[in-house]
Amino acid sequence: MNVAEYLIKRLEALGVNDFFGLPGDYNFNILYAIENNENTNWIGCTNELNAGYAADGYAREKGYGAIVTTYGVGELSAINAIAGSYAENIPVINIVGLPSTKNLNDKILLHHNFNIINTKAYIKAYEQVVETTALLTKENAKLEIDRVLKTFVKEKRPVYIAIPMDVSLLEISDKEIDYNWISDKDVLEKVVNIINDKIKSSTNPVILGDVLVRRYDSYNEYKKMVEKSGIATTNFLMGSDLITDDVKNYIGTYYSDYRNLLAKKLLETTDCLIAVGTIYSDINSFGFKLPYEINSQVAIYGTHTYIEGEKYDNVKMADVLEKLTEIVEPRLFDAQKENLACKKAFITQNELTSEYIYPRLQEFFREDDIIISETGISSLGLAEAKLPKNAHFITQTLWGSIGWATPATLGVCLAKPNKRVVLITGEGSHQLTAMEIGTMLKYGIKPVIIVLNNSGYTIERVLSRSAEDKFNDIVPINYSKFARVFDGNIWSTRVQTADDFDKALKVTQIMDKLCYLEIFTDKLDLPKLSEEVFSDIKNKSNVEIDKNIAEKDVKLMEKKSLKFTTIVHESLYKDL
Amino acid sequence: MNVAEYLIKRLEALGVNDFFGLPGDYNFNILYAIENNENTNWIGCTNELNAGYAADGYAREKGYGAIVTTYGVGELSAINAIAGSYAENIPVINIVGLPSTKNLNDKILLHHNFNIINTKAYIKAYEQVVETTALLTKENAKLEIDRVLKTFVKEKRPVYIAIPMDVSLLEISDKEIDYNWISDKDVLEKVVNIINDKIKSSTNPVILGDVLVRRYDSYNEYKKMVEKSGIATTNFLMGSDLITDDVKNYIGTYYSDYRNLLAKKLLETTDCLIAVGTIYSDINSFGFKLPYEINSQVAIYGTHTYIEGEKYDNVKMADVLEKLTEIVEPRLFDAQKENLACKKAFITQNELTSEYIYPRLQEFFREDDIIISETGISSLGLAEAKLPKNAHFITQTLWGSIGWATPATLGVCLAKPNKRVVLITGEGSHQLTAMEIGTMLKYGIKPVIIVLNNSGYTIERVLSRSAEDKFNDIVPINYSKFARVFDGNIWSTRVQTADDFDKALKVTQIMDKLCYLEIFTDKLDLPKLSEEVFSDIKNKSNVEIDKNIAEKDVKLMEKKSLKFTTIVHESLYKDL
Repeated sequence: MNVAEYLIKRLEALGVNDFFGLPGDYNFNILYAIENNENTNWIGCTNELNAGYAADGYAREKGYGAIVTTYGVGELSAINAIAGSYAENIPVINIVGLPSTKNLNDKILLHHNFNIINTKAYIKAYEQVVETTALLTKENAKLEIDRVLKTFVKEKRPVYIAIPMDVSLLEISDKEIDYNWISDKDVLEKVVNIINDKIKSSTNPVILGDVLVRRYDSYNEYKKMVEKSGIATTNFLMGSDLITDDVKNYIGTYYSDYRNLLAKKLLETTDCLIAVGTIYSDINSFGFKLPYEINSQVAIYGTHTYIEGEKYDNVKMADVLEKLTEIVEPRLFDAQKENLACKKAFITQNELTSEYIYPRLQEFFREDDIIISETGISSLGLAEAKLPKNAHFITQTLWGSIGWATPATLGVCLAKPNKRVVLITGEGSHQLTAMEIGTMLKYGIKPVIIVLNNSGYTIERVLSRSAEDKFNDIVPINYSKFARVFDGNIWSTRVQTADDFDKALKVTQIMDKLCYLEIFTDKLDLPKLSEEVFSDIKNKSNVEIDKNIAEKDVKLMEKKSLKFTTIVHESLYKDL
Repeated sequence: MNVAEYLIKRLEALGVNDFFGLPGDYNFNILYAIENNENTNWIGCTNELNAGYAADGYAREKGYGAIVTTYGVGELSAINAIAGSYAENIPVINIVGLPSTKNLNDKILLHHNFNIINTKAYIKAYEQVVETTALLTKENAKLEIDRVLKTFVKEKRPVYIAIPMDVSLLEISDKEIDYNWISDKDVLEKVVNIINDKIKSSTNPVILGDVLVRRYDSYNEYKKMVEKSGIATTNFLMGSDLITDDVKNYIGTYYSDYRNLLAKKLLETTDCLIAVGTIYSDINSFGFKLPYEINSQVAIYGTHTYIEGEKYDNVKMADVLEKLTEIVEPRLFDAQKENLACKKAFITQNELTSEYIYPRLQEFFREDDIIISETGISSLGLAEAKLPKNAHFITQTLWGSIGWATPATLGVCLAKPNKRVVLITGEGSHQLTAMEIGTMLKYGIKPVIIVLNNSGYTIERVLSRSAEDKFNDIVPINYSKFARVFDGNIWSTRVQTADDFDKALKVTQIMDKLCYLEIFTDKLDLPKLSEEVFSDIKNKSNVEIDKNIAEKDVKLMEKKSLKFTTIVHESLYKDL
């Protein structure tokens, strides 16, 4: 077994059956290892950034993802996708094919390097965006693969392995990796006891869950803890698919000042906060409105726990939750929550607006669906939709790289071939990576894709000084026609009215094809929640700027801010 | 004048009138500076990588190029394009919009950063691929902009400036930058005299020119030197548009063992090599077959000169050439070169093959054309075509990032709006960045685009073990239909025969539209030169590998190599 075959086999054992990327003359030996392994497939994408996004989507549903790229040009094209996986704790490996060791050592100027030769530049760039990197040599190949994969499995973050073309063919032993790392028993016991004592002595504890619960394979343990403890439970946006409304002590998602004032009140007044896998980013937590410092109370992460600022290392999230569930005394918090779901979708007038789209989508979703949403208008629209049981809701809220969702859908579909996958994306984001529709068709994948065509970057229209700023216009594309330029099994249509949208969604249910709906709204049509949030973000960012600039500029900013506010209120709130 | 306006004004003074990129909430203030300057335009692209390629193309024709990206997601998406510009000495600036200074300093987790906050990661990644970077603050803004732009102008390589959103609005003084750096008089005199003495005492001096002559604004000086000196002159591939055949002492392009044995012989036997702006990369120099060490003789670069390994700093290429031309004693080398141009294009059978395509393109090209070719089959096909006077031939031979040529064409068209621009690209490369056709149409640009559809990555088919390896298949796309999904002034057609190709090219001459020709060839149809080169590269890389791997693998490789050779000879040489 050669080095490349060994690496592919080890990844296969982690559940990676599909490898994304593009071929290059330096990575052929890695591609042969994929082709020669009967349990792994090569998924050729239309560019490396898309391949990276696809692997990210794949890893979100399958645990781990992988791309194969080529020296310089390929790997650097994918770096933004890998950085996004790093930001959001998605374990994706980038396997890079390099020129031969001899050529690297001799500093021979081969294509894909600089006129001033620097063979280490790319690995150094990657060091900034992955958990660990390795450049394989004849001597270190097995040791380094094993070390990197152990980190991969423990930290659940991207890693990077560069393999010179000669090294990939070297024979190495096929000895399995021992991934086991177990929680430190003493620390675990201590942590669990302290948390339990804190809960016991508290009057109104609150659990705040988030997306990292899924990343660290702790979903079942989390659910059991929430259910047995009976403690009031909420979550940030990215964790909104963890617990469903039928759990009595579940309050619903925290939206800061915008919705769900029960969650806000409980989080503001709790005397014992138990945060589990939380990401405290601007959009995910709706603007840092919480009264406590991050990690100031109990914060359980994948490999460690903070209690009142003190870090306890080497304890797995799943273990902490499991042990805590065993000893926690049940409470009987009854959320008596208001129903925050979208109201039923009624076609009152035939105009297609957010007021119809998101309630209708809520009805369209069914159990076990995987719903992917581009960060932006659509994710904030869906933040108000109630999810069915066992549905997954996937967004890239923290990294927020527009274009991510379309290739991620390819990855998710391959990871879970038996589930219905629904993508909702704005056309402004979609255009960055839309070619991947062709890859979906090539591999016979059949998601439902809804492209919201609102004539440009609507979020940016809202956030910039004027909704008419030309830089927010984009290239006009006939998307439904675009989707048909590829060979494949597709139904694509354009939808201009609420009635047609309703019917088109029904049609998708009987179509055994990739369904592609291009739906049109006004360029400033916004879901209610996003209107409120954006208006606040904008005002806040102006205030921050004000503090930093000279007096004259402050006045200028105030004028501009005023001007914007007027625009928001005149054009965005016009229908309210 | 605020910081953003100042930077844009300084770039405008360098001839940058068009700025490529995508808007983001952190870069608005930079976009306003572009919109508010009446001499600068914002060119919104379909993604950041494409924007980077477009700026690269723009800089190749206009001297300097610029992109504007947003923090993290935007800037990292463009890094491969900037790295390519760095490799090939193209001055492109990446202006990145960042969150406010306060938020950066307070390490607040905003979107587009990591869950483990690291606000310096992106600038550190960029340090690997640009000449210099700067993060602007209230205190250093003007000083840093001036420093970075001076480096930009002197070194002709990419630079990077990150501007927090508050800093971009700060008022600064609008004092012009003094770019002047002049050659060190004494060093210049010494260098010129030594070179002149070497020439005088030599019996068969040779000038070897290359693309960096253009990068360092030394084209006129180079041409005069070649013409006055009468010294035998050749060039590498990337410099093939420097001198035309009507110059008596011009030998033609050096192709190593493959063509032009006169150039090979003269370079191998010269007792005085004068290399001017050369890039000694594998493809550009057709495989390192030259007998001398790089810089061992006279090597004139943009800002310094090597003579027999000794470096003389602070002498401009243009100055060295100009002074040398003044004192050099004319020789009368008469190349008596064989005609290396493609033979006339005859339609003998109607099949569309390289044997017809490249000769026909040679006839199609006219004076002052700008011809852009993707690295690959098409650039090697065109390497044999004779260029008309004042035509520019642009490839990315060193960096070789597939997909580059299509957006680069957008940039070139904007840089030289009055010239005819012809793009030739394989469809395997084109698919990575083809959405930029939409941007061309949005901005009313009208190049002639020829997409060579040969059903996959033909180069990779040739270089990998078997031409049938599946990873070299790509997503099937109807390109001529694809080009029509955008709004705009376009004529697109599919061409299957030599006769139709001939006619379609004639039609482009009367069309006042973007002309898009999808032409079909067999998947293993290769121009003759590329057949020979690839066969050699493949054998060579196998030999290199052989040296590094165990005996068993050597045998395996030999078997595989043999297998490959058979395939090449059976399928690729079948028509000879």
